[in-house]
Formats: sequence, C-alpha cells, structure tokens
Amino acid sequence: MDERAALALLSGELDAAGDDAAIVDDLVVTTDMLHERTDFPNGTTQYTAGWRAVGASLSDVAAMGAEASAAVAAYAVPEFTRADLLAFVRGASDVCDLVGAEYVGGDLDGHDEFTVATTAIGRLADDPVTRGGASTDELVCVTGTLGRSAAALEFFERGDAERANDLFRFEPRIAAGRALAARATAMMDSSDGLARSLHQLGEASDCGFAIESDRIPIHDSVRAVTDTDDDEDALERATTFGEDFELVATVPESELDAVREATAVPVSVLGTVTAREDGITMDGTELEDRGFTHG
Amino acid sequence: MDERAALALLSGELDAAGDDAAIVDDLVVTTDMLHERTDFPNGTTQYTAGWRAVGASLSDVAAMGAEASAAVAAYAVPEFTRADLLAFVRGASDVCDLVGAEYVGGDLDGHDEFTVATTAIGRLADDPVTRGGASTDELVCVTGTLGRSAAALEFFERGDAERANDLFRFEPRIAAGRALAARATAMMDSSDGLARSLHQLGEASDCGFAIESDRIPIHDSVRAVTDTDDDEDALERATTFGEDFELVATVPESELDAVREATAVPVSVLGTVTAREDGITMDGTELEDRGFTHG
Repeated sequence: MDERAALALLSGELDAAGDDAAIVDDLVVTTDMLHERTDFPNGTTQYTAGWRAVGASLSDVAAMGAEASAAVAAYAVPEFTRADLLAFVRGASDVCDLVGAEYVGGDLDGHDEFTVATTAIGRLADDPVTRGGASTDELVCVTGTLGRSAAALEFFERGDAERANDLFRFEPRIAAGRALAARATAMMDSSDGLARSLHQLGEASDCGFAIESDRIPIHDSVRAVTDTDDDEDALERATTFGEDFELVATVPESELDAVREATAVPVSVLGTVTAREDGITMDGTELEDRGFTHG
Repeated sequence: MDERAALALLSGELDAAGDDAAIVDDLVVTTDMLHERTDFPNGTTQYTAGWRAVGASLSDVAAMGAEASAAVAAYAVPEFTRADLLAFVRGASDVCDLVGAEYVGGDLDGHDEFTVATTAIGRLADDPVTRGGASTDELVCVTGTLGRSAAALEFFERGDAERANDLFRFEPRIAAGRALAARATAMMDSSDGLARSLHQLGEASDCGFAIESDRIPIHDSVRAVTDTDDDEDALERATTFGEDFELVATVPESELDAVREATAVPVSVLGTVTAREDGITMDGTELEDRGFTHG
C-alpha cells in the first residue's frame, strides 16, 4: 500500500481526517513528520530545518483559515549538539513569530536519521474552510508564487546552499488564509503541488477546474534554474513539484476584490471552477494528477 | 551532549518548556517521539503501539491536571500495510476514547525505522499543576502501581507477547489528574521512573522528599518476573525503570481524603515533602537520581 492509499484508508476511518488539519471544537490541529532522506537535502541548515518543519504545519493551519496559536516539535538526531539544537529552535521560533504563534518546544529523541515531527494548533475565528465547498463558475486562485522549493532543490544540488536555504524558508500564509477565510468556498495548501492540489480540491468539492498556464505565478528563482527559453520546464516545476506551501482557494468572483484588499500577499486567479465531468484542464487539455504526496 | 543536557538547554531557551506539557492560553500541548529500537520491543503489536504512543502524550496532559481534548500521531514505517495501519489507529482511538479525547489522525511517512510522534492537547479547567509548587510537610503520593512496564519488558523477552502487550497498554491518568488538579501543589508523570521523578519535582519545587519503600505500590506482575524472595529486585524495577505513566503529586495532608474520594484510582502516600537540604531519601538513605530519560 503506498502513502496515498494509506491516507485514503485513514480518511475513511477517522471523521476528522482528510483535510489539511483536523477540527476539534474551535481548534485546528495538524501534524507532519519530515526526515533527512526525503525532506532535508544536503546543505539544509538546522535553522532552515526548524523553520521549514514548523512552517509546514503552520501552512496547514493557514489552509483552514485559522489563526495560528502554537507549535511543538519532536526533534530526533543521532547526536545532539548545542549549536544545532539552538539553531533548530531559533528557526522554529522565528517562523512562529512571523505568524503570531508561540513555539512551545517539544521532545528530543535519539534516532539514526535526523527526523522532525511538528504539530501546529490554530484557533478558528470564522467557520473553517475545508476542501469541499467549491461551486461552478467561482474563481480558483493561488497566493504568492510557485516553484520556490523546486528551485531550492536545484540550488542545493549545485552547492549554492545559501540561496537554497533562503528559498526553503517560506512564510506560512496565515494572514492570507485569514483574509480568505470568510470568503473562500474551498481551500488547501499547495504542499503536494498545484496539479495534485487541484485534483484533491476537485474530488472533495465534486468539481472540475479550467486553468490557464500563463496565469500561474512562477517564482523568479525558477528562471534561474531552467533554460530561459524553456517555458515548459519552468511550468512543469511550478505546477508539479510542490512543497511551496501557498494556498489554493476557490472564491466567488464578487469576493475577489475584498480578498485582495484584505491581504498583502498577491492572490492570482488561475481560472474557474467547472463541472466535475469537464475534468481538470490547463489551456484546455487535461492536467494530470502528478506531484508529490507528502502525507 | 546527552538528551538530559539537551532538554535542560531547551528548557532555558523556551519559556513554555520544562514541564510535562506546555501551556498556551487555556490549552496544554505535549509531543513525544517513540521508535522501534528504543520503545517498541519485539512482539509489540501495532494496536499496542498506537495505544501506548498516544497514551504517553495523554499522560503528560494528565500531569498538568487538564482535560484531554484531542491527539494526533505521525506514523512512519518502511512499508504501509492495511492491517498494521488500522490496528495502530484502533489502538490510538481506543486510548483516546478511554479518557474522553478525540483521536483526529495525523500524518503518514515512509521511514527506515518504525517511528511514531504523537501530540496531545488538553484544556485547563483549573489552574495548571506544574512541577514547582510543593511545600515542606505535604504528602507525596503516586496513583495506581509501579513496575508494569518493567514487567512487560521481561515478558517480551520471554516471548510472552500477549501478557506483555496487555501490560504495555496503560490507562492515562486523566481522571485522577483532574481529581488532583485543584488540590495537588506539584505534579508530573512517572514516565522516567519514580526516582527520577522525585529528583525532578525536588529540583523544580526546591524541596526534598522522604519516602518509605514499603509504601511503594508495586504492580503484581513485577512479582511474576522477579524472584519472589527478592524484594530488592522488585523495588528496583518499580522505582527506576519508569514508563509507568502514573502521576506523582504532592498534596497537603488535609486534602488527601478529598483527592481519594474524587477518583477511582488508588492514590498511595509514599512519604513527605522535606527541606531541599534533606535530600531525596528512601528509608532514610539517599535515593539516587537513576532512571530512564525519555525526553
């Protein structure tokens, strides 16, 4: 059974599973495990690791439209060093500070592979925004830009760790999520890539999407790692790599201006919500369900 | 740097760290990572693993005197199987049901070693009970009995997995913690063993303890794995092995009857709180700070 099948199984077993975060009374709760082999390329600093691991969980809180309250991390390494531990905690604390959450520590453990499990807790001021509320003719939007993490991976491979680490530390979209909360009909984060996110939203909302490739906001860094003449390559990285932790949301057209006024983060319209039978298309052709499943 | 030094470092860095759980507004939050090599002996079922991992975090909620609201787990294995995953989730759900919490799922991840990170969230109805409030002449008490996990480990080693698994699935002391919440002056769980727990309470409360060995409640199963004539061995296992997830609390003598009336779990008096300079003693001799540091 692969990770997607296992997740689907869980989602059938647990009422609260299947969205970016579980809802418990007025709280949202989400947990993620990241580890060296799959999530922290060679060159990732401990500061970046702390930031990114906690940020990934905060992104799930943002995707529910909640305020961020607190985060904890369980930190496991083969050997503790003071510098590493302090750097990790600083990264975790700094990303929490950025979004008004409190980093309240966690657990330490010895482990053969550097492994971090983070949990974030948010409070709902509005009703939560799930993946299941999109309706035909609404707009499908994305916050910020896509492709940062895809570009970062290239920079790690090229040995430009400083640039890669900068790109790896993203701002969780808590403020944008709050701006969208009262107006979006469906929302999730783009951690599995835009293509997979649209497929997941489409399945949960029983709808299709028609998006246009030239409306996809691609991060400048993607151009630095692809052939400048190769639009296809840049688009591919921006739509399928994932781990960008932007928000993908559906919004009635009449609400778009209000959303944009309420947040400093750019909100780009990618296209429209269509009927389920029209499928998920980009420039009129099927957009395959490809991307990373990060759980 | 070993795990204790690293924990001490964190406790200095983070205001909210250093107790069984962090306090965030009216919530308590705690996270733990467990993995196969150190926490799940050969023969541990996935059902027991789910129960125990989530139970360990719920025990930290109990130690703060809070109600248990919800728990999540990040579950990582080399290969997902339907039966294992469902058994784990059932164990996690059952221990939550037992204490009125909701198991709301979590994350899945591929990992070379079976690794589980759990987070539990509780709500404070009373002021939290920290480790730091004990005063001289109060009573020091423990809930339930000690030595279950020490005995379980023996049964695992002897190949009696059924008995071992039974012992490994403990009841988190949420109800007892609630009964103690309004009356205890200091509290923690005994996950690192009674001896270490007393040292940690003593340090946080700036006090000593004088306990008597014949008042320590030892689980019947300990007798089944030790020489029946060897009281020392049984006592050693009960006081230093840990992982029993009972509550160790200090209570004014005048409150003891009220505590006992408020909970169905036996509350045993081990001795009294003394001055810091009197140290931590059992039967008048120093009780060493020995045990497991589980982080």
